[in-house]
Amino acid sequence: MSYFPASLETLIDKFAALPGIGRKSAQRLAFHVLSGSDEEADSFADAIKNAKKNIHFCKVCQNLTEDEICPICSSSRRDRSLICVVSDPKDVLSIERGREYNGTYHVLHGVLSPMNHIGPDDIKIKELLVRLADEEVAEVIMATNPDTEGEATAMYISRLIKPFNIKVSRLAYGIPVGSNLEFADDATLNRAIEGRTEM
Amino acid sequence: MSYFPASLETLIDKFAALPGIGRKSAQRLAFHVLSGSDEEADSFADAIKNAKKNIHFCKVCQNLTEDEICPICSSSRRDRSLICVVSDPKDVLSIERGREYNGTYHVLHGVLSPMNHIGPDDIKIKELLVRLADEEVAEVIMATNPDTEGEATAMYISRLIKPFNIKVSRLAYGIPVGSNLEFADDATLNRAIEGRTEM
Repeated sequence: MSYFPASLETLIDKFAALPGIGRKSAQRLAFHVLSGSDEEADSFADAIKNAKKNIHFCKVCQNLTEDEICPICSSSRRDRSLICVVSDPKDVLSIERGREYNGTYHVLHGVLSPMNHIGPDDIKIKELLVRLADEEVAEVIMATNPDTEGEATAMYISRLIKPFNIKVSRLAYGIPVGSNLEFADDATLNRAIEGRTEM
Repeated sequence: MSYFPASLETLIDKFAALPGIGRKSAQRLAFHVLSGSDEEADSFADAIKNAKKNIHFCKVCQNLTEDEICPICSSSRRDRSLICVVSDPKDVLSIERGREYNGTYHVLHGVLSPMNHIGPDDIKIKELLVRLADEEVAEVIMATNPDTEGEATAMYISRLIKPFNIKVSRLAYGIPVGSNLEFADDATLNRAIEGRTEM
């Protein structure tokens, strides 16, 4: 039996439906919204509607954008012959933060995951192949996460790219910059030794 | 420099402004909203607007309600001569869950906290005194939290009630039901001995 008014319960339910938000947190968030001004609540609600309405996939790289083609794909300073394939829009942000990569991206929006019934048609692989057929691409860098599903996805896509005669590379594995060998796990250390470079 | 579209950044900012939600969590929540259907996003936004629009304080007990007077205050089965003073609407829910208390409530919406510049005029004390003057009240139960600020608030209010010649009581301190003496802290155990009852 609930003693909160119906519209408060509804709001708590909405917050509780978000990932990683439990019932207690949802209550706290709902009370926070109630304790703010009308304008704050309205602008929060509008932000949700606007984001959902305005944001869609870039026609070229499938990254999230408000335009037809995202700022990276439409930039004249970007090297279009280089495509970095990532699983998630957040990964684009991570690589951009480094300020060194100058090519374009392709966002898969997921990885192959038979356990979760996610197959090749559920992620943006077809769109990548269309790009490879239409554009002059010299190299595709597979930058999916270095976990089982990310590896499998990279492997699967690299095999599809083979017929195009385009170079496919993978992010280097190794010890993170600034870390300590003592704390590196065995698999990472082995990969770092395998992939050693001449000084 | 941000590489998310503006309306997505706005939504992330809104989530990040909620208590206990960091930047990374806010991103995750915003992406969750984007990944859902248009209807889901709309109903979330509407839930925020509706809650903020429909919910206000009960004219009697100051609890949150959609009506002028909340279901508890307007119920004929409630003992109006008994008022339980709590600091937060969530505390009403906690006590109601016990299904034993049959009186009414008064929600302070906060506790006195000089550190945070919250004084007697910032919480619903005045409204409680008006009730005591207007209604036939036999007893006020102070049920603020058993911490420093809750104690100080209970003490402050009980002194204000004194002139009304109304009985003021405080929730009992003691060991929680089902717990283990071994794990009770000293202060609780001392209070449990002080407050011992005859068997």
